[in-house]
Amino acid sequence: MTKQELFLYIIRKESFLCVGLDTDIKKIPSRLLQEDDPIFAFNQAIIDATQAYCVAYKLNLAFYESLGIKGQIALEKTAAYIRRKYPDQFIIADAKRGDIGNTSEMYARAIFESADFDAITVAPYMGEDSVKPFLAYPDKWVILLALTSNKGSRDFQLTTDATGERLFEKVLKKSQEWATDEQMMYVVGATQGKMFEDIRKIVPDHFLLVPGVGAQGGSLEEVARYGLNSKCGLLVNSSRQIIYADSTERFAEAAHNEARKLQEEMSKYLRWIPNLK
Amino acid sequence: MTKQELFLYIIRKESFLCVGLDTDIKKIPSRLLQEDDPIFAFNQAIIDATQAYCVAYKLNLAFYESLGIKGQIALEKTAAYIRRKYPDQFIIADAKRGDIGNTSEMYARAIFESADFDAITVAPYMGEDSVKPFLAYPDKWVILLALTSNKGSRDFQLTTDATGERLFEKVLKKSQEWATDEQMMYVVGATQGKMFEDIRKIVPDHFLLVPGVGAQGGSLEEVARYGLNSKCGLLVNSSRQIIYADSTERFAEAAHNEARKLQEEMSKYLRWIPNLK
Repeated sequence: MTKQELFLYIIRKESFLCVGLDTDIKKIPSRLLQEDDPIFAFNQAIIDATQAYCVAYKLNLAFYESLGIKGQIALEKTAAYIRRKYPDQFIIADAKRGDIGNTSEMYARAIFESADFDAITVAPYMGEDSVKPFLAYPDKWVILLALTSNKGSRDFQLTTDATGERLFEKVLKKSQEWATDEQMMYVVGATQGKMFEDIRKIVPDHFLLVPGVGAQGGSLEEVARYGLNSKCGLLVNSSRQIIYADSTERFAEAAHNEARKLQEEMSKYLRWIPNLK
Repeated sequence: MTKQELFLYIIRKESFLCVGLDTDIKKIPSRLLQEDDPIFAFNQAIIDATQAYCVAYKLNLAFYESLGIKGQIALEKTAAYIRRKYPDQFIIADAKRGDIGNTSEMYARAIFESADFDAITVAPYMGEDSVKPFLAYPDKWVILLALTSNKGSRDFQLTTDATGERLFEKVLKKSQEWATDEQMMYVVGATQGKMFEDIRKIVPDHFLLVPGVGAQGGSLEEVARYGLNSKCGLLVNSSRQIIYADSTERFAEAAHNEARKLQEEMSKYLRWIPNLK
């Protein structure tokens, strides 16, 4: 999917919501445990219930890997289900991978060939040759960690060099030598609030994937205020707030309502974009 | 496995060799492709041929993930095979994971519960709460990326702060607040040569996992000279040089010979440790 296609899809849906399928077998309604594949059954219900209000799904690979082979099967089935039934949706593998070149190549094969994700999150610590193999797929995206939503983001991401430049800023700058905003996005946590202003100075045109709204405490309005650009430039993720909105049989209906609420809020903020027809 | 147990095992085997099972379906002898599980068949042969000369196996998860479900099955079978047949071997999941707390918890479950690895490699970019969940398993190890073997290590790991401290040094220092040398090791690439001197000033007692000998060009002698400490403190990994030493039917014999050659060299260097009986 190109940047322009993603933008047009956002405008059509009046939403920049990404639903995070952090599906935990310990948190899904007990009835589903009788299904052949409870994780997939849950995901399918959540996807059908939320797809009208979102433009992307993010599958956090950890949750699937924690279940071994069964989890891997549920992951692949889920990605394939979205691709088949809702082909316009942007599908993100939240993997935070990154390794030496020949190894990142293997991860790229896993995410873009074995499965058919549109994007993968990548950790920048190992530098250019750990990121490049993911960029060899021209219609696929790398979403590089820049400033994450967690407390530990302060440990290294905010350290400054002799010129006062912070590590996440260095990541934003350096990585622009590797790819343009047509193939690279950045992870910036919603909890970082006004930091979005600093980030937009370095990457005015890039899409940002923004986790941390909801359970982690980030404000959607603040993210929109400081993060929106002329092509929207935001995919805001919500996981727990949507998929675990209700722990009973009515989980899908509750997820539907939460996703709609976020979409309605987002549709207001999208009107802040100037000259949008 | 405790640090002392690992040290005693190293002394007994006169080796600090870790064999990297970076098994690529495209590189294994064609006869094996007729097996039910070619990757596992290859690994089994390599393990049986090398176990006398090494103390650890490192499974690079990317290579298995690139094959989807089948790869996942081969991975789990391989780890279980080592555990059952050679229970003293230290088994490393080279995963380079790291995510917000509740997600790292899931990765920890995958690596230490679904599978039974002794250690996992973790990327430090997201800081303390991304690493801590892996430390909740008292008999398991975190191997944190510090200074990697690839060219891209220069992009961020070597950047200096206002006081002249490099990022990898900051990682080495800060992470010592999270765990001791009884539960944490560091990845330091063999290609970093004399940098080991600087690293040993900060982490004199820790074990270091050292990739990059062989295909990547690092020198084993140099690593030993600057890296050894009184408890050995090194696990030196070799992957391609051993497992692809020969591409014919004789691959296992060739792997055996390569592993033995490295072990013999290592046994010399181990004598450099003072007061070793």
